[in-house]
Amino acid sequence: MKPIETVVRALSDSHPETAARALEGLPAEDAAKILEVLPASVVGAVVERLIPHAAGEILRRIPQDRTQRLLETMSPRQSALVLQHLEESIREQVLSGMPAEAGRQLRDLMRYPPETAGGIMDLGTVSIPIDLTVQETIAFLRKAPREALHYLYVTDRERRLIGVLGMRDLLLASPRDRIEGMVHRDVKVVPATMDREEVSSIMRESRLMALPVVDEENHLLGVVRHEVAAQVAQEEAFEDMQRLVGAGADERALESVPSVVRRRLPWLAFNLGTACLAATVVGIFEDTIARFTALAVLLPIVAGQGGNTGAQALAVTIRGLAMREIGAGSRRRLLTKEALAGLTNGLSIAFLAAGAIFLWYRKPGLSLVIGLAMIVNMTTAAFTGAAIPLALRALGRDPAQSSSIVMTTVTDVVGFGAFLGFATVLAPMLG
Amino acid sequence: MKPIETVVRALSDSHPETAARALEGLPAEDAAKILEVLPASVVGAVVERLIPHAAGEILRRIPQDRTQRLLETMSPRQSALVLQHLEESIREQVLSGMPAEAGRQLRDLMRYPPETAGGIMDLGTVSIPIDLTVQETIAFLRKAPREALHYLYVTDRERRLIGVLGMRDLLLASPRDRIEGMVHRDVKVVPATMDREEVSSIMRESRLMALPVVDEENHLLGVVRHEVAAQVAQEEAFEDMQRLVGAGADERALESVPSVVRRRLPWLAFNLGTACLAATVVGIFEDTIARFTALAVLLPIVAGQGGNTGAQALAVTIRGLAMREIGAGSRRRLLTKEALAGLTNGLSIAFLAAGAIFLWYRKPGLSLVIGLAMIVNMTTAAFTGAAIPLALRALGRDPAQSSSIVMTTVTDVVGFGAFLGFATVLAPMLG
Repeated sequence: MKPIETVVRALSDSHPETAARALEGLPAEDAAKILEVLPASVVGAVVERLIPHAAGEILRRIPQDRTQRLLETMSPRQSALVLQHLEESIREQVLSGMPAEAGRQLRDLMRYPPETAGGIMDLGTVSIPIDLTVQETIAFLRKAPREALHYLYVTDRERRLIGVLGMRDLLLASPRDRIEGMVHRDVKVVPATMDREEVSSIMRESRLMALPVVDEENHLLGVVRHEVAAQVAQEEAFEDMQRLVGAGADERALESVPSVVRRRLPWLAFNLGTACLAATVVGIFEDTIARFTALAVLLPIVAGQGGNTGAQALAVTIRGLAMREIGAGSRRRLLTKEALAGLTNGLSIAFLAAGAIFLWYRKPGLSLVIGLAMIVNMTTAAFTGAAIPLALRALGRDPAQSSSIVMTTVTDVVGFGAFLGFATVLAPMLG
Repeated sequence: MKPIETVVRALSDSHPETAARALEGLPAEDAAKILEVLPASVVGAVVERLIPHAAGEILRRIPQDRTQRLLETMSPRQSALVLQHLEESIREQVLSGMPAEAGRQLRDLMRYPPETAGGIMDLGTVSIPIDLTVQETIAFLRKAPREALHYLYVTDRERRLIGVLGMRDLLLASPRDRIEGMVHRDVKVVPATMDREEVSSIMRESRLMALPVVDEENHLLGVVRHEVAAQVAQEEAFEDMQRLVGAGADERALESVPSVVRRRLPWLAFNLGTACLAATVVGIFEDTIARFTALAVLLPIVAGQGGNTGAQALAVTIRGLAMREIGAGSRRRLLTKEALAGLTNGLSIAFLAAGAIFLWYRKPGLSLVIGLAMIVNMTTAAFTGAAIPLALRALGRDPAQSSSIVMTTVTDVVGFGAFLGFATVLAPMLG
């Protein structure tokens, strides 16, 4: 018990965020043991900050009544996320053990997929009916839960959203003023089914602190809070980076080995298939390589420059698409820019590479071949790096998904084809 | 003039964010012409949303007095960003033409580098002295600027920060209550020199809507607003992705060709140097390749699998570091996990690749060589992909900066070395 006590003391003293990261780093059994002895005052704040997947793994290892009490201390949105990671039988038991209203709320929340506005909204939004006065509203606010009151939403008696009020509006009004005359009716709303990435963009562009979420009949369901939207934007950016190379979009650094393998292996197998394509191109020129083995030595340089050039264009284009910098009208301009940049960089690198190869082999023919190959290879690579995400987006697909694997295949095929093709044609100069 | 009129009408009707993206997509001369004829009612909102770099390019092409009026319609933070992108002579003229107080504020803002809390804060924060009553505060608020009043900061008479009040606190208090008795003194502050990425993490973890920025004597300088912090988090994530491949960290999709070349060419040249290392390794085994040219054909497969495996580990580790999921205590666990995942994936891919090669060449010796090389190559690649960003972070460097170039070099050297080394040792079985 000694080491556990030390850990428990250390975790109790640290920020809940730090404690959560530490628990995620432990095997789930150990984390569950620690959670059971953590002081009640901190455990809720820590569990709320766990990655939902990790929270699910840990919570299904502790007694059910304790899980239930823990979930009740958390925000409904976070509880719903965690519940979705519990096995269905446990989830149902926990839900039916809860107070009816809380259970109903959680079931509502879980109806919306996590990648939608409904999936990231907070429930229990405070709203007031439009027929109150300022005085009545203040009296109502005295009894309302303290947390998270940035805006006061105004609805009709069926909780259909009419508008919004700031606390400042109330503060500067006279007690007898009627809400109806003060409410701002041009309130920005998002439907519960809207993609969370779009919600996050709207939040950023509107500079609001919270966005109300409504159903088809304009009933107020909840709000998306600014810090949730910010987290979404950041997560989506990193997901793009991970998808780019065929890691899992939401893969975490400290996941278990089997889970990591399950996420990555399919893309590695796909990559093996596409690499065989590149190998086939090299195979076509096996006779030329047999005559000049120096060509084989230089293959990594051709592949490396093409791959890096393409990756640069790919990263910049994916970012541009995600940040909505690339409109329908600017696609052609982008492709032209990348082709020109690839050509310019290709000319410079061709010059450098040809010089280096000459110093190494003293064969001007070989320098010429690698120089020409670099120009073709790098121009194509930059163009392809921009074209792949644009094409995927135009097809309604994710512009990042494994695009670096496709891009590398194109640059390898074009690069090897150009390099070995020029070498075959210019063979008389290589001797 | 006809086409310009159409563009101007279209831009006036669209959201300022959309209009800004469209202007950035045009050559700076054309954008400047359009800006001069855009209605005064929209132009400020559009310019405020331009990337500061683009805004600088455009504004230095329009008459100086118009630039000045435009900057005055923008938020001080945004004006300061734009001013930093104007040539110094123009900047000084514009600043000295402004009202003294506005000019001083902007000069203050520009003192802090853009990557610090001071560089992203809003100026002109409303604060009240602590010796007021609620009634006096409300009277004061009636005269204060309307925008952006989430929190009311409370200071002493020298504007040193004492605490914070919510509008709701005021709303529920009696007019005679003294601010001194109501103020929340445990207010979270950030120093003006703090890195903006850290500010953004603190904002997310604290769930606040604004963070006050103070100098060394605790004077309130301004606030960082939540949507600015959210933008920072997202930008930093994409910057990591772009740095990873040696594109400019803040490179935009529609930058000019010369600027793109300037950003990317140095890393491509560096990549050429490291690719020569890989080529040298292949060169060591030139005799073996001369005997078995099939080896040259298979080089792209070895390089491709190593590169992709390494890139997966790299992306996941960089994300983990940025999101603070990887603590000092979990580094070893991460490296072990990656090595094991690389080994498992390596075994699977070795099996697949050996099978495919056997079907292709019918040479069991060649299958054995590629299988062994895959296992060594992919285990090393996954380990290296995690180790490089961890090492860079430990050295106090940026964990993303061009780490994919370094990683590819390691995987190429190890992959080619293992593959051609095994082939040389097992040469009698290849015949």
